[in-house]
Amino acid sequence: MNDRPDSLPAHLVSILASPSHPGNIGAVARSLKTMGLSSLRLVTPDEFPSPIASARASGALDVLNAASQYEDFGAAIADCRLVVGTSNRTRSLSYPHVTPREIAPVLIEEARKGPVAICYGREECGLLNEQLAQCHYHIEIPANPDYSSLNLASAVQVISYELRLAFLADQGRSGIENRDAWPPTYDLERLGCQSWDEPPATAAEVDGLIGHFERATHHTGFLDPKNPMLGMVRLRRLFNRARVDRVEINILRGILRSVEKMLPSTNERETQDNYGSPGQGEKNV
Amino acid sequence: MNDRPDSLPAHLVSILASPSHPGNIGAVARSLKTMGLSSLRLVTPDEFPSPIASARASGALDVLNAASQYEDFGAAIADCRLVVGTSNRTRSLSYPHVTPREIAPVLIEEARKGPVAICYGREECGLLNEQLAQCHYHIEIPANPDYSSLNLASAVQVISYELRLAFLADQGRSGIENRDAWPPTYDLERLGCQSWDEPPATAAEVDGLIGHFERATHHTGFLDPKNPMLGMVRLRRLFNRARVDRVEINILRGILRSVEKMLPSTNERETQDNYGSPGQGEKNV
Repeated sequence: MNDRPDSLPAHLVSILASPSHPGNIGAVARSLKTMGLSSLRLVTPDEFPSPIASARASGALDVLNAASQYEDFGAAIADCRLVVGTSNRTRSLSYPHVTPREIAPVLIEEARKGPVAICYGREECGLLNEQLAQCHYHIEIPANPDYSSLNLASAVQVISYELRLAFLADQGRSGIENRDAWPPTYDLERLGCQSWDEPPATAAEVDGLIGHFERATHHTGFLDPKNPMLGMVRLRRLFNRARVDRVEINILRGILRSVEKMLPSTNERETQDNYGSPGQGEKNV
Repeated sequence: MNDRPDSLPAHLVSILASPSHPGNIGAVARSLKTMGLSSLRLVTPDEFPSPIASARASGALDVLNAASQYEDFGAAIADCRLVVGTSNRTRSLSYPHVTPREIAPVLIEEARKGPVAICYGREECGLLNEQLAQCHYHIEIPANPDYSSLNLASAVQVISYELRLAFLADQGRSGIENRDAWPPTYDLERLGCQSWDEPPATAAEVDGLIGHFERATHHTGFLDPKNPMLGMVRLRRLFNRARVDRVEINILRGILRSVEKMLPSTNERETQDNYGSPGQGEKNV
């Protein structure tokens, strides 16, 4: 797994979820190798190994033959610290959507520390909702809205190309020998101006959530108020880091209420009083 | 030849010089259309039209069927004000070499004024020296020096992708319309360069946490398994968005364990068995 100067980190793992055509698997191996990538995982391919895959891999037989196979998607991403999936459809639940160019430098950086998964769905349907739900980010290739269906190996080619360019840019290289680097044009600030599907929680609502956690865990015996821990501080940091939204607060407080109802030691009245002002993060969803 | 808002200028003409495989011609049509390009010229294709080409074109049959044929390369580029050709070999005579990213904005700008040719050579050998000699610039995709042989349609995909992004950038667009947002305070740079105090959870550890939430909330009655809600999907999204770390997972699972211990309905043995593998998010903090 030695990384040669022109090879991208082996921790950059490309995952094909249930590919149907063996030719596409071979073509993907070729796309990966041309960009210096080498790690390929296959989840329940319909047909593999296959002479068709080998023929399409052309000079990338080594990448193809080193591909590992998995029985389910969860197992294929299990060791990965960051998981991104390609998606070109709007889903009912919104996720952070990024372009290949935006996410590539992040993936390069993260792959220095551990395995990172870039996941591609089955040709006909893409990644399933339950697979996309396991991804930190959804990558969307900015395609023609009238016809956005890239061939599988073409999608892999574009994203791997962006990974290679981010890798080279990080080294101050253009990828063409004896040439100066082009000026990077990533517009990170633009990312900051998006709107989420639910309003973000206010500070008071996060306060209410943490207070609720404190009371509930006091009742369960997890939290000893005489011996405070960093636990609640860490939970607050977690929720703030995620910019927890109002619906998420409602879910978590609904769970905590359901816990309190079950606890023999809970005084229903007292707990009610401590919930905070009515209508604030109270509605169950 | 009307340009719709999402179509790139029709003056951007892709030219295939003597393609040998009809399947590749179809795949090129598909690559072009996914990026909003539509003008394709073929110079002495070995086999065309062909049902193989049509099959590989998939939803881009219109682009394929509108392709025009030429008897020689010179005729195909005759009306073009700017001609660029792909090349991945160093030639005896040096030409201005550019990356797709560098040249794309130039091509977009020039195509407003008249036809511009982007030329691709025959699969086995690329553009001939006399064809490259007719190009203003040589485009080189920054590929793995050990294996730089992109499939023809993949090369077209990458260059057409850069053309699309340059076209969109010129309009101040990212190419992802109405996209779901990124949490406003999410700092992409920090994400890439952070030295967080704890290692991020793996996908398997997040799975373990969500599974634990499901079991515990099933016991408390919050979660009705026969009537699944988006709640758990939203919690997973929340934790992934925050890139929950290992200590945070331990805290949350410690809370859930403390809840389960208090519940009259919880069978301690069964719960223990369901916790997942030992040492994974188990230590209380």
